[in-house]
Amino acid sequence: MTTGFLPSRLPIIQAPMAGSQGVDLCVSVCEAGGLGSLPSAMLTPASLRGQIDAVRARTRAPFNVNFFCHVPPEPNPERAARWVAEFAPDHAAVGLDPPPAATSPGRVPFDEAMAEVVEETRPPVVSFHFGLPDEALLERVKRVGAKIYSSATSVEEARWLDARGIDAVIAQGAEAGGHRGMFLTEDVDAQPGLFALLPQVVDAVKVPVIAAGGIADGRGIAAAFALGARAAQIGTAYLLTPQATTSAVHRAALASARDDATRLANIFTGRPARGLLNRFMREHGPMNRLAPAFPLATGAVAPLRAHYETLGSCDYSPLWAGQAAALARAEDAGRMTERLWSEATEALKTIQLAP
Amino acid sequence: MTTGFLPSRLPIIQAPMAGSQGVDLCVSVCEAGGLGSLPSAMLTPASLRGQIDAVRARTRAPFNVNFFCHVPPEPNPERAARWVAEFAPDHAAVGLDPPPAATSPGRVPFDEAMAEVVEETRPPVVSFHFGLPDEALLERVKRVGAKIYSSATSVEEARWLDARGIDAVIAQGAEAGGHRGMFLTEDVDAQPGLFALLPQVVDAVKVPVIAAGGIADGRGIAAAFALGARAAQIGTAYLLTPQATTSAVHRAALASARDDATRLANIFTGRPARGLLNRFMREHGPMNRLAPAFPLATGAVAPLRAHYETLGSCDYSPLWAGQAAALARAEDAGRMTERLWSEATEALKTIQLAP
Repeated sequence: MTTGFLPSRLPIIQAPMAGSQGVDLCVSVCEAGGLGSLPSAMLTPASLRGQIDAVRARTRAPFNVNFFCHVPPEPNPERAARWVAEFAPDHAAVGLDPPPAATSPGRVPFDEAMAEVVEETRPPVVSFHFGLPDEALLERVKRVGAKIYSSATSVEEARWLDARGIDAVIAQGAEAGGHRGMFLTEDVDAQPGLFALLPQVVDAVKVPVIAAGGIADGRGIAAAFALGARAAQIGTAYLLTPQATTSAVHRAALASARDDATRLANIFTGRPARGLLNRFMREHGPMNRLAPAFPLATGAVAPLRAHYETLGSCDYSPLWAGQAAALARAEDAGRMTERLWSEATEALKTIQLAP
Repeated sequence: MTTGFLPSRLPIIQAPMAGSQGVDLCVSVCEAGGLGSLPSAMLTPASLRGQIDAVRARTRAPFNVNFFCHVPPEPNPERAARWVAEFAPDHAAVGLDPPPAATSPGRVPFDEAMAEVVEETRPPVVSFHFGLPDEALLERVKRVGAKIYSSATSVEEARWLDARGIDAVIAQGAEAGGHRGMFLTEDVDAQPGLFALLPQVVDAVKVPVIAAGGIADGRGIAAAFALGARAAQIGTAYLLTPQATTSAVHRAALASARDDATRLANIFTGRPARGLLNRFMREHGPMNRLAPAFPLATGAVAPLRAHYETLGSCDYSPLWAGQAAALARAEDAGRMTERLWSEATEALKTIQLAP
C-alpha cells in the first residue's frame, strides 16, 4: 500500500549518508520494503546517473535521491591558507606535508546539471538537505513528478519548507548524526531534540512529517509515530551493515559507541555535523571559528587521516554518528529493515500505559 | 492500581520546580491521580515540614519530596567579587547599586536536618537531583520506606544510580527545562536528547525508568512508553497553571515560547539550566566561565531582576523552560493531568503504523 507522500511499502527511510554508502545499501533497503536512498553530494552527474541505473537494474522498488543545496561559498584564499596552516604541526609531527589549501568546493549543490539527471532518470523521491534549491530548479524537480522532502531543524524551517509546496518535511532532531539540515540559522544551540521538535512540527505544517534523529530500533519508530510522524528516517543504524561502505576505523569506533560520546563538529567540513569524539575534535574543536565556510574546510587533514587510518587509527577521521549509535548492529541491511518494522509493530502492541 | 516503584494511580509525575511552585500545584496533581512534587531546594527544614503537613491536610494521595544533593562549593571571595563586578555597568545604567558578593550558598543540599524531616514526615517518594546524598544519609531515607528516584543524563549516570539501589531512574533528556541533573560530568554537550537516551537507559538498568525532558502532552507520554519508560515526568507544561507560582514575566515569556528559543545557561546559578533566551543570556552568556560554582552565582543580578520585573520586563529573570514550552497551556493543573492521561491513551489507540 502506498500513500501520497511515500511510495515505499514500509514507512522506513534509509537516511542518505554521503561517503558511507552507495548503491548496495540503497538496493537492500528498497528490496526489504523501505525507501533506500542514494546520496549524491559527492558524486558527479555522470556517476549519479550510473548509480541510479545500477539501482534500477537490481530493484523495481521506489528509491530516493538526495542532494545538498547549500549556497557555494566565495573562495577566500587567506582563510583557506590559515586553516591548512593550523594543522601544519600535526602533519610535521608524523613527517607529512600539509595538503594544498582548498579553494574550490568538493561538494556541489543541486544545479542545472543535476536537474538534468533528475529529468532524465525521474527518481520517485528527491530529498534535499540545507533548505531547497531556487524556485526554477525546484519547479523542474516537481515537474518530473518526484515526491520532494527536505529537513527542518526547527518549526520555523518546517513552516518555510511547507510554504514552498513540498510533499513531506523531515523533522531532524539534535540527536541526528552527520550534518544538521539547518538553513535559517547557524546556531546549533537552537536545535531542539526530537521529542520536543516533532510534535511542534506536526502541529505547524500541512504536509506529513518524517522523524529523524536518534531513531535506531523499532521502539524509536513506534515513539515517532506516537508523536505524530508518518515515517521514520534512520541513518546511523545502517552504518554497520555489510552493504554500507563505512570505513574500517569508523566501524570499529561505532562498535564501542556510547550515548554521550558524540559531539557537533564543524572542523571536518565547515558545517556542524555530529560524530563520535576523537583526537581531531578534542585538539582542534569540535567547533572552531577558523574553519572556512562549508564545504571548504574539507580536506585540511586528509594526509593525516590517510596516515592514521593505515595504522588502524580514527584520530583524524570523521566518525559520523547519531546519539543512538550504540544501538546499531552489524546485520544485513534488508534483514535490519524487516526487524525494525516488526519491532515497531510489536512495541506498539505491547505498550502498557500503566505504571 | 499501584506497582512497586510508583505509588500514584497514573504514571505521570509533576516535576519539582523550585521557585515556581509549592503546595498548590503538588496537591492538584495528586488529587487528579498523578504524583505531585514538593521542591525543597530553596526551603528550610521547618518550611518543608510545614509544606508536607499542608499537602497531607489537603490530599490523602501519595506525593514526592525533591532534594538537591550537590556538593556545596568552597567560598571563593575573589571569584564572587569578580562575578558581581561583571554586572556593575548593568546596574549603573539604571541607577542601581550592585548587590553584595554572595559567599554563602542560598540552596542547601540534602543534609542531617532534612533527613530528620524525612524521618518525621515519611513522604511516600523522595527524589534527588545532582546524584545522591552520601551512603549514611541515603540509608536513612531508605529506612523510612520512601521510594527513591534520581535523574541520569547519560547511561553512565543511570548505571551509577542503579548500582546504589534506588527504585527508579529518571532519564532526563537534553530537552528538559531547568537544571541538568548531571553529576558525573559538567560537559553539557555530552547530554543526549531523550529519543536516544531513553531506550539506552532502559537497556542498561534493572529498575524502572521515568522519562523526562520535552514531554508536554499525551503524545509525549505515549512516545516515552513506546521507548520503554514506565512513567513520564513533566515540568514546563505545568508552569502556566494557576496552581504554579510562576512569575508574571515568566508566564508572559512562556505564552510566546518557541521550540528554538531556549538555551542552556549557567549565569543564573552557576550550573547549566535550560530557559528562554533573554537579554541577560544574550549579553552575558548563556554560558560564562566567570560564573562561580553552583549555587554561588545566584543573586548577582537580583536588584536588576527586581527592577525590570517591576517594569514588566523579563530581561534579567530566569525563565526556566524545556524545548516543548510552546505546548504548555494555561489550564487547571488537575484537569491538565487528566487531559495528559486521556490524550496518551487516545494517542496509543489511534496510532496507525502505516505511511
